[in-house]
Amino acid sequence: MKRTTKSSKTIKQGARSNRLPVSVSGQITLVTDFGTDDYFVGAMKGVILSVNSGAALIDITHEIPPQDIHAAAFTLLACYRSFAQGTIHVAIVDPGVGSTRRPILVVAGGYFFIGPDNGIFSYVLDNEADQTIFHITSEQFVRKPLSTTFHGRDVFAPVAAALSTGLSTDSFGPQINDPVKLTALKPVVGSNGKVSGRIIHIDRFGNCVTNIDRSSLSGNQPIRVTVKGKRVAAFREFYGEAGAGKKPFVIWGSAGFLEVSARNRSAARLLGAERGDAIVVRVE
Amino acid sequence: MKRTTKSSKTIKQGARSNRLPVSVSGQITLVTDFGTDDYFVGAMKGVILSVNSGAALIDITHEIPPQDIHAAAFTLLACYRSFAQGTIHVAIVDPGVGSTRRPILVVAGGYFFIGPDNGIFSYVLDNEADQTIFHITSEQFVRKPLSTTFHGRDVFAPVAAALSTGLSTDSFGPQINDPVKLTALKPVVGSNGKVSGRIIHIDRFGNCVTNIDRSSLSGNQPIRVTVKGKRVAAFREFYGEAGAGKKPFVIWGSAGFLEVSARNRSAARLLGAERGDAIVVRVE
Amino acid sequence: MKRTTKSSKTIKQGARSNRLPVSVSGQITLVTDFGTDDYFVGAMKGVILSVNSGAALIDITHEIPPQDIHAAAFTLLACYRSFAQGTIHVAIVDPGVGSTRRPILVVAGGYFFIGPDNGIFSYVLDNEADQTIFHITSEQFVRKPLSTTFHGRDVFAPVAAALSTGLSTDSFGPQINDPVKLTALKPVVGSNGKVSGRIIHIDRFGNCVTNIDRSSLSGNQPIRVTVKGKRVAAFREFYGEAGAGKKPFVIWGSAGFLEVSARNRSAARLLGAERGDAIVVRVE
Repeated sequence: MKRTTKSSKTIKQGARSNRLPVSVSGQITLVTDFGTDDYFVGAMKGVILSVNSGAALIDITHEIPPQDIHAAAFTLLACYRSFAQGTIHVAIVDPGVGSTRRPILVVAGGYFFIGPDNGIFSYVLDNEADQTIFHITSEQFVRKPLSTTFHGRDVFAPVAAALSTGLSTDSFGPQINDPVKLTALKPVVGSNGKVSGRIIHIDRFGNCVTNIDRSSLSGNQPIRVTVKGKRVAAFREFYGEAGAGKKPFVIWGSAGFLEVSARNRSAARLLGAERGDAIVVRVE
Repeated sequence: MKRTTKSSKTIKQGARSNRLPVSVSGQITLVTDFGTDDYFVGAMKGVILSVNSGAALIDITHEIPPQDIHAAAFTLLACYRSFAQGTIHVAIVDPGVGSTRRPILVVAGGYFFIGPDNGIFSYVLDNEADQTIFHITSEQFVRKPLSTTFHGRDVFAPVAAALSTGLSTDSFGPQINDPVKLTALKPVVGSNGKVSGRIIHIDRFGNCVTNIDRSSLSGNQPIRVTVKGKRVAAFREFYGEAGAGKKPFVIWGSAGFLEVSARNRSAARLLGAERGDAIVVRVE
Repeated sequence: MKRTTKSSKTIKQGARSNRLPVSVSGQITLVTDFGTDDYFVGAMKGVILSVNSGAALIDITHEIPPQDIHAAAFTLLACYRSFAQGTIHVAIVDPGVGSTRRPILVVAGGYFFIGPDNGIFSYVLDNEADQTIFHITSEQFVRKPLSTTFHGRDVFAPVAAALSTGLSTDSFGPQINDPVKLTALKPVVGSNGKVSGRIIHIDRFGNCVTNIDRSSLSGNQPIRVTVKGKRVAAFREFYGEAGAGKKPFVIWGSAGFLEVSARNRSAARLLGAERGDAIVVRVE
């Protein structure tokens, strides 16, 4: 399949948008829970490259814990804006595959998102004012025979590939306004300088990412932090600053959220912390 | 090395073929047991890109269990057709590296396959009527000095790269007709509606892929299934259909084989199943 | 950002160099300890492709053990020359991120290297006569806002991308001559045919790579080898040659060093060997 003429590569966004129309970049990222031991990711890439041999494929991760929609939603949120405008982000954590859950195409913030309608794009949608969502209903792009267990290969990959060749977003199905949403990430901000949040992600280094962003603290610095009821040391500017100390501390993380970290060790292990655990911050 | 003229990019298949000649797509996939912790995969890619900087490299998986030729053969079978015709599939699980085992180049079904002659392409060869196999003997493409332990980098990568630039397949060595073969995947089909198969792969979700394909069941649905002597619940159309039940069931998997699955959990763990375990199906 | 004119893509090396000037190949490799579970690698790639959409990105590995600079230095050494001249190798194992440790750009052996100045390029520098090192001080290429914890995304990725578009190396900052160095890999060569080395890497197959290269043995073959005081069997040409035996043996490995291996099993496990353990070789 060849890229169509330049005009057809310009994709109109919804009425809410006041940005310029978005064009596809030819870059397609993948976030899945498929792991890398099996043929799943390879099969998806083969399908995409069969349609658009010029597509640039970028693995964000395939190590989302099986069926963990929240982890995929966070991962997308943390990096979708690092890519060029017009990038297509394909995200597949899909316990409802084969059922009536809708496949969707989202245009938001100058990016495209393709995957199941189960909340996986929830944090992105909470983050972007301009957004248009399409229910993918056209069977034109679906691989035959359609499996009931692997829509990554049979639906989402060919749709992403077709979109990357410059097709208009309304080629894929009608607009919808009721996407499935996860609980929003916002922490509870009290009137007394107390902010109650939770751990939303633990990374490979054992850093505990919380849902507390700079706006929740109104620009103030945290002065007293407790995780699971245990006091955590004062705020640090960077890891090395912690010096010889081995205790956890809080730091502004690279995803824009407050993180609980420890120098050259796992804060999660030191604290016995898990996703969902409470963090309470008092600011001055 | 530059791509040669268009005519030399057309590669003749063997006499058995009645397809059009196959042209290379410029896409090269990798299936290995190298893991991703070491420099092995990077070194192979560096060698390929040194020869053909325009090659598109696609990782299928590097997590084949060490020396597990059967797992690699299954992985290739499950996804080689998802790629565009003319794709070069490089597969390296090579316990005999450095010995007299032959390096081979296979042209089958419109695809190219490069790797050791140890059965790794066995299931593909069983699956394709048109096939030509070459023993790679030309030393022209071999990296010097040739290591005795890493022919992925020193033989298979440069051969794949040279092929991807459009060289004729007979540039690499003479045709052979006696490739090493694994036991075929076909189950035993009894006259009484009983089909005796085995588990040939367990994926990251714990789905147990069997060697029973639709043709083995003559289009009938399984009505009674036992795995390791234990009864498994009735056939499902898709994962979600299993409802609240936690028991394993059978389903047609995305590789075209009957699979034993469980909703949002590992069927393999529930059943204590391993590769090689027996599955018996009765059809109506 | 567009590639600049051809002349500006030619990069001058330091005064010590007597090679032709090096041009960037458009290929950028990545060695990190980021793992592949998180968004870190994806974010870096997004940043690079935002600047140079034509860059070819190659993962060497992201599974360097957290903060293990030695492992990253070895991995680079083992494969940097497998790539085309002009390749940009980005290596990030960076426990000092956010502190005063310097970000550097190294030109050596016809390759470019970008990462923190903590010894990660040490083995490459020991291996190359011509080398020029720049302290990256220009803030022009730094992503804003600059995080204190993720310079992979905010400093090293944009610098690599800018370099890949053809900028001169002296655009990034002044030359330096005092890079941080790790202990050199050379073994101790005695006058009595005794060579005392150590295990510098254990790969996924359990092969123990030592720091003993061919030059350390003066072209002689080892005749008596002990690892951790235990005798290891005689020299082998290739894995298969070991026959039915299950004992460890030594072999010349693909990275150019003597390795302790076992056929189809882990020599490291058989010997209880760890990185740093002593190996003593006597030659005839």
